[in-house]
Amino acid sequence: MRIDVLTLFPEMFDGVFSSSILGKARDKGIVSLNTVNFREYSNNKHNTVDDYPYGGGGGMVLKPEPIFAAVEDLPKHQEAGQEPAKPRVILMCPQGTPFSQKIAEELSSEEHLVFICGHYEGYDERIRQYLVTDELSIGDYVLTGGELPAMVVIDSVVRLLPGVLGNEMSAVTDSFSTGLLEYPHYTRPAKFREWEVPDMLLSGHHENVKRWRRKESILRTLERRPDLLEGRELSKEEKVWIMEWREKNK
Amino acid sequence: MRIDVLTLFPEMFDGVFSSSILGKARDKGIVSLNTVNFREYSNNKHNTVDDYPYGGGGGMVLKPEPIFAAVEDLPKHQEAGQEPAKPRVILMCPQGTPFSQKIAEELSSEEHLVFICGHYEGYDERIRQYLVTDELSIGDYVLTGGELPAMVVIDSVVRLLPGVLGNEMSAVTDSFSTGLLEYPHYTRPAKFREWEVPDMLLSGHHENVKRWRRKESILRTLERRPDLLEGRELSKEEKVWIMEWREKNK
Repeated sequence: MRIDVLTLFPEMFDGVFSSSILGKARDKGIVSLNTVNFREYSNNKHNTVDDYPYGGGGGMVLKPEPIFAAVEDLPKHQEAGQEPAKPRVILMCPQGTPFSQKIAEELSSEEHLVFICGHYEGYDERIRQYLVTDELSIGDYVLTGGELPAMVVIDSVVRLLPGVLGNEMSAVTDSFSTGLLEYPHYTRPAKFREWEVPDMLLSGHHENVKRWRRKESILRTLERRPDLLEGRELSKEEKVWIMEWREKNK
Repeated sequence: MRIDVLTLFPEMFDGVFSSSILGKARDKGIVSLNTVNFREYSNNKHNTVDDYPYGGGGGMVLKPEPIFAAVEDLPKHQEAGQEPAKPRVILMCPQGTPFSQKIAEELSSEEHLVFICGHYEGYDERIRQYLVTDELSIGDYVLTGGELPAMVVIDSVVRLLPGVLGNEMSAVTDSFSTGLLEYPHYTRPAKFREWEVPDMLLSGHHENVKRWRRKESILRTLERRPDLLEGRELSKEEKVWIMEWREKNK
């Protein structure tokens, strides 16, 4: 997979692209991660990439030319004898489709992703209409720019690529693949200060541990994110747990 | 404000903490941004910070000792003659409260925030129970670690601190402060390739432009994020726009 990021702040990506999973995926040649400063495509003597909005009002708007030029200048992905693959061109913005694990999985099957990151400014609408294939938002909060959201999407997509995750990574972090929140984890020491690990986990009784974990997982989801349980098929036992919990928390 | 981040990958933060708004806020002395590698508190000869989970299963779990020790070793915020301020200790995890603009605003009034970022691993439950004051999740997708989520929360909080945003930053990006998605923006050139700016915006008629923008904003929200309109008070005119839109898109 190849990923290009258009940004006015390429230096923001250095630490993230070279550390941890992204750094390893890059070193293994599974993904190529590039940043392009689209200011280089401004094509005017002051290197401006934004301008005042038509119709007035505060704030600046990113001009269409530099961003179109930067995307069109990306070398094309092409196998011998084939048409060049069309990249997915993704605009990070608060107006976008809410990003989800399902979208991460879908994007992980693409060959080429291009991310456009604005910063402070709005985007000229023609960028959305005629250049971009997807608009994504990572959540309903205001950020300074699209850079952090692009890193979030890239991290979640790259970790899904075959060969990226070794054994060090496990289901432990995969809350949203099971659709439930994680049960509590404990490790040594069995007693830390005055706080002990639940006896159940020290019992060595594999089946009981499994059941305890499923119960904790269901109840934690019920307590914190009941929305995740909507429409879920529940076993008889799970329904009893939920009823008992509701009775106790009335 | 002071922000400390506990992480095994402090180098991921370098580019982000020194660029753009965060870098400026730091240079102006409005916020101090520090990373602490809690591996330095592992207190064992192999510098391990994680261990196998009690009860079996894959994955590793972050041990309580290094994280408690690192938090307790942070210098205390203290004004002369006052008790040291208690920091908010925030765990970034998929089980956390969904982060929102409201939480960003609330956190922006604190003096001291501490972020704990796990990576691959789960957290020993005693960290959640006895050390942490808040658990936050930035969205329902799986990431490699808590580092990017911490950066997202920090960016959204710091930009709200008095003196951080200059005039270069405006309502343009503030979709979630108005509760509606932004209307389309346009800037020069009036004609780019064959695509023209809507005549309305070139009319110079201030009231009409304002009305056009409000309408576009309402309709874009209706189309993309109808959930944001739920429970909102609408004017008569806005109701008419919505009815017309529904009629057209039946």
